[in-house]
Amino acid sequence: MNYFSTNFTLGILGGGQLGKMMLYETRKWDIRTNVLDPSPEAPCRIATENFEVGDLMDFETVYNFGKKVDVLTFEIEGVNVEALEKLENEGVKVYPSAATLRNIQDKGVQKQFYKEHQIPTSPFKVYKDKNDLNEAIVRKELHFPFVWKSCIGGYDGKGVSIIRSAEDVIPLSEGACIAEKLIPFKNELAVIVARNPSGDVITYPVVEMEFHPEANQVEYVICPARIDEAVANKARAVATKVSEAFKHVGLLAVELFQTEDDEILVNEVAPRPHNSGHYSIEASFTNQFEQQIRAILDLPLGNTDSKVGGIMVNLVGAEAHTGQVVYKNIEKILAMEGVTPHIYGKKETRPFRKMGHVTIVNKDLNVARKIAEEVKKTIEVISK
Amino acid sequence: MNYFSTNFTLGILGGGQLGKMMLYETRKWDIRTNVLDPSPEAPCRIATENFEVGDLMDFETVYNFGKKVDVLTFEIEGVNVEALEKLENEGVKVYPSAATLRNIQDKGVQKQFYKEHQIPTSPFKVYKDKNDLNEAIVRKELHFPFVWKSCIGGYDGKGVSIIRSAEDVIPLSEGACIAEKLIPFKNELAVIVARNPSGDVITYPVVEMEFHPEANQVEYVICPARIDEAVANKARAVATKVSEAFKHVGLLAVELFQTEDDEILVNEVAPRPHNSGHYSIEASFTNQFEQQIRAILDLPLGNTDSKVGGIMVNLVGAEAHTGQVVYKNIEKILAMEGVTPHIYGKKETRPFRKMGHVTIVNKDLNVARKIAEEVKKTIEVISK
Repeated sequence: MNYFSTNFTLGILGGGQLGKMMLYETRKWDIRTNVLDPSPEAPCRIATENFEVGDLMDFETVYNFGKKVDVLTFEIEGVNVEALEKLENEGVKVYPSAATLRNIQDKGVQKQFYKEHQIPTSPFKVYKDKNDLNEAIVRKELHFPFVWKSCIGGYDGKGVSIIRSAEDVIPLSEGACIAEKLIPFKNELAVIVARNPSGDVITYPVVEMEFHPEANQVEYVICPARIDEAVANKARAVATKVSEAFKHVGLLAVELFQTEDDEILVNEVAPRPHNSGHYSIEASFTNQFEQQIRAILDLPLGNTDSKVGGIMVNLVGAEAHTGQVVYKNIEKILAMEGVTPHIYGKKETRPFRKMGHVTIVNKDLNVARKIAEEVKKTIEVISK
Repeated sequence: MNYFSTNFTLGILGGGQLGKMMLYETRKWDIRTNVLDPSPEAPCRIATENFEVGDLMDFETVYNFGKKVDVLTFEIEGVNVEALEKLENEGVKVYPSAATLRNIQDKGVQKQFYKEHQIPTSPFKVYKDKNDLNEAIVRKELHFPFVWKSCIGGYDGKGVSIIRSAEDVIPLSEGACIAEKLIPFKNELAVIVARNPSGDVITYPVVEMEFHPEANQVEYVICPARIDEAVANKARAVATKVSEAFKHVGLLAVELFQTEDDEILVNEVAPRPHNSGHYSIEASFTNQFEQQIRAILDLPLGNTDSKVGGIMVNLVGAEAHTGQVVYKNIEKILAMEGVTPHIYGKKETRPFRKMGHVTIVNKDLNVARKIAEEVKKTIEVISK
């Protein structure tokens, strides 16, 4: 198949920032794309040959969109899987597959999948609804503290809570959920795995999420993780095992915990380019978006090594600011060495909305880490 | 001025590959763009908020386009300068300025400019037309061999000839021209200089054009050039002097000769991103297209150092192939380490048409050079 400057068309479900960054690569290779997103203002509205507005969860919309493309992918998990299944049956290549997505979309199913495949993960139980969960607490089958996760729709920290008392249960949503054992960990790590339909598999270096000491929020994604090589190798091995179990095609971002005794547990996965891989645009020989294109088009996978150390800081909307966005002091961070801001192109900021990210690269990772701190102190995402 | 996710609009005259690669950066920063190009199929037809089809040499077209933007730049020298002058007078920021372009567009004026500013360049004479040139030859004021250059419109080797005999003069065009002394050189080098309206100036490392030993065609652009540090420093100093003389804003690509006794002579300049800087997308901390945006928007200039060694190979249409393009063996070069093809998106190939380029990066430049040779041997730009 010839993809370059031809009528071959790649369909992308979702037109957010991940899609936008994927479009840099399709433009670089002159691969035609169609993008579907519910918002006419989505970041992908330009830089694609064809942008359509429509509901990603609607069967007919997704099916009709998929019929017009040669390969279909998604940049968000919340898409209509039945439509993907029908498209697959009718010969459209859907990567990652509908089956992979089914195993991932529902966190209960996902955890069960790990258990069945002997993939290390924290102990858990699935509850069909909130009532079921409450009864388990009352019957003392489930003890505080535990980690509650909604089976469906969790994203960017939504749908996840640490439950320490009966009071914490009250605000939880009604739907199916899982309760996981709260495991103290040394580090939160992530490994991105790429796999193509030919079965070639490659992993990116392990990245580390550095948390704010008080706020318990990820502040920096650091590549490579500042961990022992043996632990890094173990993390990459676990991620590869997950990838092989899913037999996914495309990228699989595997979020991991490094426990206090250096065990590696799988937290959850995302079958797409991932926030933890944004550093790769500036730091890696092959960035994750190009790698995604290589993988789903069954092209040879690219080198995942880094040219330089990389650190990523998310740009999220400041508290108490809603309205037309202003990136205050952006010119100051542009004066810092090896600093590249990425602006996703959302016109309106809201508290904690992901508006962009900043990558800091340096041959010395410690220097990059110091500059990253300056970046974080300097830039502010506020409203006009 | 706030450029990011606002209504600020950057106008770009010319929608070819240089513009296309500039648009990766405007998308990255969500800077609005309008692009004008004569071809509805130009590579910039997408990824810009507004694409207009029109003649770049037509006063009214350029003027009307310029009136709708806040800052106007160009990615090709062949634009209507009178329109730029009028726009400047009416308060539109035009970078590089109309004056810079006037000093560069005509090669006779450009050479005269070097002479006036004590910038080292090969000896030359300007002739107002072909008749004038012929008379100088007859009168024995001008001796074979010499380098003939058309004053206007030379591009990519067109409008330049080495004249060794009266016979070589016959096919030359009629217009104004210059005759330059043919100076044997060790190396053809280039330095890209960036300058912002605040007057900050920065140079990229010196790159080297490696020629095919027989065909006398540039085969590889190599960064850094494999030359002595003293020569490299001299080349950067000369390029900086050129930049200061022009007081240009934006990028200035300075093409240089290293003579047999290590003198540095200015060959010619281009006031825009340049083929000799394409390696920077993969190899540099700040690529030339981002640097161009930084410079013309008066943002701080970025680090011009390289992360890794970089080599660039142009992808030009194979001889005897005209028609719908096929990139034969592209999947083979994608399997080579550190190899990134760029496909400009021209649907039709023609002999020697610039269809794309390939960058090869490696921590070891010698390894990159070997892989570059494999790339060149492997990929073919042919028609269907």
